[in-house]
Amino acid sequence: MRPDDANIAGNVHGGTVLKMIEEAGAIISTRHCNSGQGEPCVAALARVERTDFLSPMCIGEVANVSAEITYTSKHSVEVQVNVMSENILTGAKKVTNKATLWYVPLSLKNVNKVVEVPPIQYTHKEQEDEGRKRYEEQKLERLETKQRNGDVILPVINPDRQTKEPHTVGYSQSSLIHLVGPSDCTLLGFVHGGVTMKLMDEVAGIVAARHCKTNIVTASVDAINFHEKIKKGSVITISGRMTFTSNKSMEIEVFVDADPFVDEPQERYRAVSAFFTYVSLSKEGKPLPVPQLLTESEEEKRRFEEGKGRYLQTKAKRQAQMQQGSCADLVLQ
Amino acid sequence: MRPDDANIAGNVHGGTVLKMIEEAGAIISTRHCNSGQGEPCVAALARVERTDFLSPMCIGEVANVSAEITYTSKHSVEVQVNVMSENILTGAKKVTNKATLWYVPLSLKNVNKVVEVPPIQYTHKEQEDEGRKRYEEQKLERLETKQRNGDVILPVINPDRQTKEPHTVGYSQSSLIHLVGPSDCTLLGFVHGGVTMKLMDEVAGIVAARHCKTNIVTASVDAINFHEKIKKGSVITISGRMTFTSNKSMEIEVFVDADPFVDEPQERYRAVSAFFTYVSLSKEGKPLPVPQLLTESEEEKRRFEEGKGRYLQTKAKRQAQMQQGSCADLVLQ
Amino acid sequence: MRPDDANIAGNVHGGTVLKMIEEAGAIISTRHCNSGQGEPCVAALARVERTDFLSPMCIGEVANVSAEITYTSKHSVEVQVNVMSENILTGAKKVTNKATLWYVPLSLKNVNKVVEVPPIQYTHKEQEDEGRKRYEEQKLERLETKQRNGDVILPVINPDRQTKEPHTVGYSQSSLIHLVGPSDCTLLGFVHGGVTMKLMDEVAGIVAARHCKTNIVTASVDAINFHEKIKKGSVITISGRMTFTSNKSMEIEVFVDADPFVDEPQERYRAVSAFFTYVSLSKEGKPLPVPQLLTESEEEKRRFEEGKGRYLQTKAKRQAQMQQGSCADLVLQ
Repeated sequence: MRPDDANIAGNVHGGTVLKMIEEAGAIISTRHCNSGQGEPCVAALARVERTDFLSPMCIGEVANVSAEITYTSKHSVEVQVNVMSENILTGAKKVTNKATLWYVPLSLKNVNKVVEVPPIQYTHKEQEDEGRKRYEEQKLERLETKQRNGDVILPVINPDRQTKEPHTVGYSQSSLIHLVGPSDCTLLGFVHGGVTMKLMDEVAGIVAARHCKTNIVTASVDAINFHEKIKKGSVITISGRMTFTSNKSMEIEVFVDADPFVDEPQERYRAVSAFFTYVSLSKEGKPLPVPQLLTESEEEKRRFEEGKGRYLQTKAKRQAQMQQGSCADLVLQ
Repeated sequence: MRPDDANIAGNVHGGTVLKMIEEAGAIISTRHCNSGQGEPCVAALARVERTDFLSPMCIGEVANVSAEITYTSKHSVEVQVNVMSENILTGAKKVTNKATLWYVPLSLKNVNKVVEVPPIQYTHKEQEDEGRKRYEEQKLERLETKQRNGDVILPVINPDRQTKEPHTVGYSQSSLIHLVGPSDCTLLGFVHGGVTMKLMDEVAGIVAARHCKTNIVTASVDAINFHEKIKKGSVITISGRMTFTSNKSMEIEVFVDADPFVDEPQERYRAVSAFFTYVSLSKEGKPLPVPQLLTESEEEKRRFEEGKGRYLQTKAKRQAQMQQGSCADLVLQ
Repeated sequence: MRPDDANIAGNVHGGTVLKMIEEAGAIISTRHCNSGQGEPCVAALARVERTDFLSPMCIGEVANVSAEITYTSKHSVEVQVNVMSENILTGAKKVTNKATLWYVPLSLKNVNKVVEVPPIQYTHKEQEDEGRKRYEEQKLERLETKQRNGDVILPVINPDRQTKEPHTVGYSQSSLIHLVGPSDCTLLGFVHGGVTMKLMDEVAGIVAARHCKTNIVTASVDAINFHEKIKKGSVITISGRMTFTSNKSMEIEVFVDADPFVDEPQERYRAVSAFFTYVSLSKEGKPLPVPQLLTESEEEKRRFEEGKGRYLQTKAKRQAQMQQGSCADLVLQ
């Protein structure tokens, strides 16, 4: 991990980690999908399950990323990726992330065609059954989000923050635009999912820092669905706005909208959206209280309540699992 | 702004800022030129007006870049770009740059064809008249430079600096070569103007640092004309030599020469040239005196006098405008 | 491997591969050197043995890099690194490189202190004996090169190539300058050996392309010794000149000279030098004849003869080993 991978306090950006995770997932699933007799294809990211950042990684540490295919349906692959940070001076290792990604293989000759996935062998019948259950669950959720995504009104990006009160939604709202270049893309000429996630985390981090004006780190990302491909040459706008704050955490909603380039008939479209959760850290790495978000409009109040719902649900789930000592737990204190 | 965007003292390179400015300009003008019924096109940078760096930006700050189209002629677009640095911890904001750029839309199907620009609407008649005046002025200046550019004798860059006395022109003279890769280029396969400017600033900065051996920052860049496109696969040579020093500033002339790659019939050609002005800063950020440039040959003496002319002209203009407190004013102390 | 890692013909730059090799070597040797009870340290690259590029790697392929410690002396570590390219669409794998690197652990508290290396366990006594032999050989060679390095007269780099005849030394001679930034450096603030090698390969590639004006690839690099550390903030000049051509190969000598930044008492010094061998490839990937180098001065003729000596020596060694089918063999046809 190099200085450019991290913020000023030396903590590696969550987005850098997400990008590595996706790179590992894309390699292993593309390799698998081409191992049968089918036509050549490239695996495209369809979905990332909710991901917790268990402990922060620092400049100078070595990231160990390992990936394994855990389930295959006819047209999709589930990959489990683990990330460990290793301090090569002390030898200390820590699990920093466990992520689950879903890929869909697209034909190299016809990018609109999904090819068939060679089935994997399971050592136990239960593995297959559990995998099928996860598959059905995510399929359902993807359908639901697709609908929600379509409804969303394009956010008014208002860089006129000068006139806004601190701690309001408008004050920390941020956006960035990025011109999709060749190195952002797969062999098919579409943006790597990891590149998109890195930019989303960058915007979310700026929103969080503007709100609480301290050192902040990514604590978790909720499930992200990639409904639409983004083509080389597109201009993408990544926008973030804070939706909810608890005592020690901030939830930021991030949208990715794409303008297809020139001679494409397509209109601007919503490509991705997700919720990022951030915590604020003191110089000693202890979680700090977060200033409460001031909601003004009815819509902001509604979103705050929805965020609270997600927060309480996660909290309940976490307590049920009794997973202790993780960095994502800072959120719940 | 990340560590790699800045020098060791933490000041962001002027070239990094120029690159962002150009990216914003290219996106907004390409978007505008494709908004009519005309054929698909990509906006190519034709000229950047003189740009002052009003205050330095630092690692960890967020750069806010906003762009607006301020004039359109039949075949060109004028874009105004503003850059603000924001310290997201303190909330402090400063204007760091205001730049004016001219773009020309090239057809996606035939890169040698300039397409028509859809006209913008002006709120006041005066805006259009003033725009037209700026358009005519820059057109004239571009023609003049083109001629001057042709006359210029290729600089003999001699990095055999061991044998040179400190503070001579030969001592600080520097050059670098760069192989133009895919990420440096637009969809048409030509180098982004911003990439060229970043490399030019890099060379100018090294010339300045070699001369005064202190922390240096870009104070201003004079108007830059992009006469010739540079194609992917070209090798470009960027050379810089000091032309003039005042008490507190250095002027560096930078040339960009391109060698088309392989099987192209074209000869090496002069693609761009410009003058960069640098100031030297103490650890506290105060301007330091600059060692005077020692001129040896007749040509060096002539160039020094010409640089002095430009310096006095800028100084007179600045005093007339009574613009105070800007970083570019450090030059004039 | 992304578009930015490769040249226009899609072949990955040799320098990109060298950088990955060194990164793997630095991680494994730093980890090993900190595994004992000694003080915290960072492994610094001291030497890379002669490295052949057995087959070219392409955009879209996955590079598999594996490293193993094969010998330890009291103060140094020998690492063997293997690189394989994998086409994840076809599943085809090829060995592209086998490299041997020597590292020296420097104390984190005092960068001028070399700390002790924990010994490794050998499965056979012969492994240790052969390792010791390699250690003694490279030690001797390093001493010899150090002496030669000191003698070398600084090259007069003359990019005034317009006045030069094609195929002369002066015509293809090239140089670039680079400002050493934070991401180029280890935790100790010194340039990664891999970063230096990547820049060296970049310059050598431009020299080769200028000479033969075709698609060129790195065939081999001779042993490189890193005598002097290069500190963050230094300006380094990398210069390349062609020394020898056979029917199908070109030998390019590359120098790295460092100017310590600002307030350092040290003078410019020669940090590294090495010979790179390139071959020219047709569009079908077949080796092309190379235009013979025209030598003008006595020194150029002397260097040509020395290059011929190295060429014949390698050829004899290769034939003795009967290593067939490798890309580095193209050199010898």
